[in-house]
Amino acid sequence: MKTWEQWMQNQERQMALQTALTLLEYDMETQAPEEARKYTARVIGILNSMLQEETLSEENQRLLEKLAGKKSLTVEQAAMVRRAEKERQRLAAIPADEYREYSELAASSTGIWARARREGDFSLFAPTLEKMLEMTKRFAVRRAKKGQDPYDVLLDEYEETFTREALDPFFSLLKSELTSLLRELTPVVQRVDDSFLHRHCSAERQRQFAGRLADYMGFDRKRGTTAESEHPFTTNLHNHDVRFTNHFYEDQPASAIFTAIHEGGHALYEQGIRDDLTQTPVGGGTSCGMHESQSRFYENVLGRDENFWKPLYGDLQDMLPEAFGDVSLHEFILAVNKPQPSLIRTEADELTYSLHILIRYELEKQLFDGDLEVRDLPEAWNAKMEEVLGIRPENDREGVLQDIHWAQGSFGYFPSYALGNAFAAQLYHQMRKALPVEELLAQGKLSVITAYLREHIHQYGGTRNSRQLLCEVTGEEFNPRYYVEYLREKFTGLYLSRE
Amino acid sequence: MKTWEQWMQNQERQMALQTALTLLEYDMETQAPEEARKYTARVIGILNSMLQEETLSEENQRLLEKLAGKKSLTVEQAAMVRRAEKERQRLAAIPADEYREYSELAASSTGIWARARREGDFSLFAPTLEKMLEMTKRFAVRRAKKGQDPYDVLLDEYEETFTREALDPFFSLLKSELTSLLRELTPVVQRVDDSFLHRHCSAERQRQFAGRLADYMGFDRKRGTTAESEHPFTTNLHNHDVRFTNHFYEDQPASAIFTAIHEGGHALYEQGIRDDLTQTPVGGGTSCGMHESQSRFYENVLGRDENFWKPLYGDLQDMLPEAFGDVSLHEFILAVNKPQPSLIRTEADELTYSLHILIRYELEKQLFDGDLEVRDLPEAWNAKMEEVLGIRPENDREGVLQDIHWAQGSFGYFPSYALGNAFAAQLYHQMRKALPVEELLAQGKLSVITAYLREHIHQYGGTRNSRQLLCEVTGEEFNPRYYVEYLREKFTGLYLSRE
Repeated sequence: MKTWEQWMQNQERQMALQTALTLLEYDMETQAPEEARKYTARVIGILNSMLQEETLSEENQRLLEKLAGKKSLTVEQAAMVRRAEKERQRLAAIPADEYREYSELAASSTGIWARARREGDFSLFAPTLEKMLEMTKRFAVRRAKKGQDPYDVLLDEYEETFTREALDPFFSLLKSELTSLLRELTPVVQRVDDSFLHRHCSAERQRQFAGRLADYMGFDRKRGTTAESEHPFTTNLHNHDVRFTNHFYEDQPASAIFTAIHEGGHALYEQGIRDDLTQTPVGGGTSCGMHESQSRFYENVLGRDENFWKPLYGDLQDMLPEAFGDVSLHEFILAVNKPQPSLIRTEADELTYSLHILIRYELEKQLFDGDLEVRDLPEAWNAKMEEVLGIRPENDREGVLQDIHWAQGSFGYFPSYALGNAFAAQLYHQMRKALPVEELLAQGKLSVITAYLREHIHQYGGTRNSRQLLCEVTGEEFNPRYYVEYLREKFTGLYLSRE
Repeated sequence: MKTWEQWMQNQERQMALQTALTLLEYDMETQAPEEARKYTARVIGILNSMLQEETLSEENQRLLEKLAGKKSLTVEQAAMVRRAEKERQRLAAIPADEYREYSELAASSTGIWARARREGDFSLFAPTLEKMLEMTKRFAVRRAKKGQDPYDVLLDEYEETFTREALDPFFSLLKSELTSLLRELTPVVQRVDDSFLHRHCSAERQRQFAGRLADYMGFDRKRGTTAESEHPFTTNLHNHDVRFTNHFYEDQPASAIFTAIHEGGHALYEQGIRDDLTQTPVGGGTSCGMHESQSRFYENVLGRDENFWKPLYGDLQDMLPEAFGDVSLHEFILAVNKPQPSLIRTEADELTYSLHILIRYELEKQLFDGDLEVRDLPEAWNAKMEEVLGIRPENDREGVLQDIHWAQGSFGYFPSYALGNAFAAQLYHQMRKALPVEELLAQGKLSVITAYLREHIHQYGGTRNSRQLLCEVTGEEFNPRYYVEYLREKFTGLYLSRE
């Protein structure tokens, strides 16, 4: 099959450029020196231009057209073609000079955001954010099909088919159910002591324990590595080189612990992808939402369960005695699950987390609909926080400046975090029919659970989208009710039934 | 000037690919996981192919031809064109498929070398080395002009104009002078105690002290960073992102100390290049030899001088008391300069160092002349060691497997180390006329010395070659006599005059 081989040759050039870009971006967030950014951003801009050129070459287009019609393709091959064609269409809508400018800006703006955040001064970041938003909007408008909402174009990019029409009822369900559950719980949980989560803890021993957790989860160090960054993340050059980062705050030991489990979940997904998909367009996890379903499943469903900690809690007490030496496992679990309105999304408890996402979703819609200007964003943010969670940030560092995403140009990305939670709950409901999850956790047999996910989700990489995977695994369409039920069962079980 | 701008646009694509390759290679030696190598080597192969294509494009060739004739170019512009044309010619001689294969092999073979070295088994590395050598030879033969020796093609690549004709008398001078000086010194220096250099020292505190040294030297951390690797090296994405590595052996504290000063010297060179040359073909140091002249000047001429340590030795004793607490500064200096035949080049003293290079030069000539087969290399290596230094490695780990260079395909590179020593001595001879070097060192004013080098060498990047720089700074052609005199003066001063 000559066309296929020609296309693979074509494809591998795009893959190589993409891999280099992934490493350059990872490096920028983890170890590149401060003054490198401007110059390295230029390199990133140029390589993105070259990637766009390769993607839009007549040759690539011709081969993709030919392959799209082929009946003889395997499921995997057809998925590769479909994904590549989607990417080609995305890039075709953006003029070369604008794409170069955008890529360079995205690479340098995280540095500007970081500085603004450090100094707690939104005005330092506002002009860059305005520009990012304006360009992202402009590209989305160009990409939109007739009658299509530009924000929907972006939503679909991060989570296929989950446009406003699907998300509005989803978030509306979450808003009413989660806030009502939170109201029920608040009087009781106020008495739960979590003050020890702010005890001072050696960063070096946190680092060691985070490493221990990664090993415990089965993170394969021959095929991955870890580093540190302000905003933790997971990335992959390919499924034999998966990297995740963490941060270590001496007054918040729980942050590094649950970050390790969260990012470890992302990493296990990437490491679990089959080798016949390596370095192809479907060689990574299928979507942001499905990725979050894995990371948040490990972090919250497993990682905040008392059974998960039975084989580990002694080690934690030994390694961080200053924080946990006099805290029982049950007290630890009650504290790390304690639902309460808080300011920082990444440190939020499992119940309020999706409400943080809701806020960002509503603000993004307003930004895209032209109902909100960037300069009014801090105030709008604070007002939304007050409306939804009943608390108000005292400064932009703990408000609108807390997330890196908009600096990277990732508008439409946030909803996938909430979707991930819902996907995870639906998958968990099914998993419990097949596996004695609590028992396995208590026995330290996390690998059995990971093997289940590998078999049903991880191995497929990008060959199926989230809706397909959910359907295949659970025999049912996406259903957010499982998420709401899961939260209700878990939180009433933890805090109300013991009253 | 439209042609210039067109060419710059062309050029920046090559620069971007080269920068990505630099980072991929740096990453592979410092942090990439073990199993990534095969897949990342593929990426490196593809990007090298693309770089070759860009370099050989008709457009690039046409613009270079046009620019080569222009009288209106500045000195810097003319140097950029000259360097780019030389690189174009280099790549033009290698067929695309062979270059891809070669690049991929070079990227994966350092991993094979590292394993063979770890296991002390040359046979694991021999087939890869044979292939590297065969390909390097084949390309050199293609690139050779009529009547030109293929090995000369490679020598010229690392150090312009320094072919066999120049190197044979150079090494012959070193052989007779250095071995005769070593013979004179040996009876005396045998009594010098250097046993404390093998005392056990915490790696973590060595790491801290190495960091202290980098700061002391003026390494700019806003424009550079450090990491660890088995074989220390310095690299640069551009002059605002210069990186060097070190290794920390608990039983050899001096190794990390002098590696820090050596690599720090390389790094200062790159950080000292003018910003109008950044990200151009002349944006890096001019040659391997001139680079080594800087690193070895800092390491040996400055770093092994008693005056250098006057402001620092107390700190060293405080940080590594287990090794140096009871050792006087003078004893330390006598030990770290002690000339004695040894097996490992990178740990060799300043006097015998160039004899290690001589051995590699002679073996490379034999390999290229067809007088030596790869399979006979271990024995030839050991025999040469015995002939020149009078000692024989007990295994290949401390023999033929000790260096990474051949695994990377760098044949013809080694001589530049010895040349660097000689360049450094000639520059030092001139510098002493302008600066009170010993006084400055003793007063901790290293920055004055660095400023001198920055003014006379660093700032120019690749706009002048080594011979031109030497001539401009010293008013004289390259003259290796300064090196021999420097060694005689230093070593007789240190060990004989005190008799």
